[in-house]
Amino acid sequence: MLTWVDGRPAELLSVRDRGLAYGDGLFETIAVRSGEPRLLERHLTRLAGGCARLSIPLELEQVRAELLAFAAAIGEGVAKLILTRGDGLRGYAPPMPAQPRRILQAAPVPAYPAANTCEGVRLYPCSTRLAEQPLLAGLKHLNRLEQVMARAEWSDAACAEGLMRDTQGRVVEGVYSNLFLVSNGLLITPALTRCGVAGVMRAELLACAAEQDVPHEVRDVSFDELLAADEVLLCNSQYGIWPVRALAAHDWPVGPLTRKLQGFVGHLAGC
Amino acid sequence: MLTWVDGRPAELLSVRDRGLAYGDGLFETIAVRSGEPRLLERHLTRLAGGCARLSIPLELEQVRAELLAFAAAIGEGVAKLILTRGDGLRGYAPPMPAQPRRILQAAPVPAYPAANTCEGVRLYPCSTRLAEQPLLAGLKHLNRLEQVMARAEWSDAACAEGLMRDTQGRVVEGVYSNLFLVSNGLLITPALTRCGVAGVMRAELLACAAEQDVPHEVRDVSFDELLAADEVLLCNSQYGIWPVRALAAHDWPVGPLTRKLQGFVGHLAGC
Repeated sequence: MLTWVDGRPAELLSVRDRGLAYGDGLFETIAVRSGEPRLLERHLTRLAGGCARLSIPLELEQVRAELLAFAAAIGEGVAKLILTRGDGLRGYAPPMPAQPRRILQAAPVPAYPAANTCEGVRLYPCSTRLAEQPLLAGLKHLNRLEQVMARAEWSDAACAEGLMRDTQGRVVEGVYSNLFLVSNGLLITPALTRCGVAGVMRAELLACAAEQDVPHEVRDVSFDELLAADEVLLCNSQYGIWPVRALAAHDWPVGPLTRKLQGFVGHLAGC
Repeated sequence: MLTWVDGRPAELLSVRDRGLAYGDGLFETIAVRSGEPRLLERHLTRLAGGCARLSIPLELEQVRAELLAFAAAIGEGVAKLILTRGDGLRGYAPPMPAQPRRILQAAPVPAYPAANTCEGVRLYPCSTRLAEQPLLAGLKHLNRLEQVMARAEWSDAACAEGLMRDTQGRVVEGVYSNLFLVSNGLLITPALTRCGVAGVMRAELLACAAEQDVPHEVRDVSFDELLAADEVLLCNSQYGIWPVRALAAHDWPVGPLTRKLQGFVGHLAGC
């Protein structure tokens, strides 16, 4: 598959990159269809916000142009962008000025079963908890060992995703998805002020809820509240929305607001 | 400077390495003197423990042989070993079986002022707090954004190190060092069960205290307890021991147990 480093085809990068040394960087995983990056502005907005918080200089127009060219070259699939602080000498102190490095990797369209979208998925109850770190909360940064450990907890294909809670037991997200629940007509998604990744499809759903006058809240969610919900759904930028049907012995129906939101984001093909 | 990838001279590595994608790996920073890696067995023990906890397969004898050969090639300096889970496809699920990658990077002997060892150092009070994540606590893994952010908090060369506390305010460590304090003849170092890196020099000092019948404890340490301590010291495998003399408006003397421990670990040259 195609890979570019700093705008040129390359399969290799410097061993001194701080992305490798410290996970000192950010990434975006962008759906590409008909040669176009989907939700590009949301991805760029999140990237710019992350760079600002980590004090990584960003040439936004260069990244935008590169993503458009890369998507055109892929046609259909996934464009993963990794932006690191670039090479460094030994030691944590960031180089001044940093020369960030852009890495683009292509992958095929993920082969998720259509049933995930139509009939919903089972969640694995991960025992790996998310640590509370407000300084990094919401960012799609390269420090992802928690997700690696959580995803390694199950191999049963019957569970398409895993539920992640924080160290206090609050419900936060999936391993590679965000989570929403519906309770008495109210759409709720966990606040990501202590941990979690603020996904672009989550932002899209919140914007959609606002436009469609769907009552919604972003706040802490307890495990009991999740279990008592009328509907539960997962979302990410690759698959759109999956209804959540089961977690251990608990189950939920596919509810009407979930179906309505699936219609809005246009990922219901095949049901 | 010399770099090896999987035992061969190389300056580049695959863009698909999971060390870059997720920080999915570990590292060791080893002092090399007269062509020998110092504290090699402690470094290998920690690496093996980290690999076991992250389920990364480790060919320990291969790593040992490579470190010995690399140290011989360097002569004097630092050998940094990065061990990653190797290449992966898209997604957090670890490849089975993983083919870990070994990266070795040489650097010169760090040019720390001799006064740090002889007269002691000032600590910068970092506002970046360490998140509590027991699953990763103690490991020298590649998810180091907290240290990057903490080290970026100060540029005043008068502060040689920064003090890091956890999100509850407990005293944990330096940004690139471990911390001990002395209180009424008792040597105390913070427990690293929630966060922090369990350094090899910390292990060496604890072993030394046990051998020398120095009363010692590994437990939680409050900020007030740090301020009330009779002596405070930092340690790591590169510089040995630095007395801590000041933190903001607070100061400590260089105490007798600090000097005694410096004598044991043999880094007092120049005072």
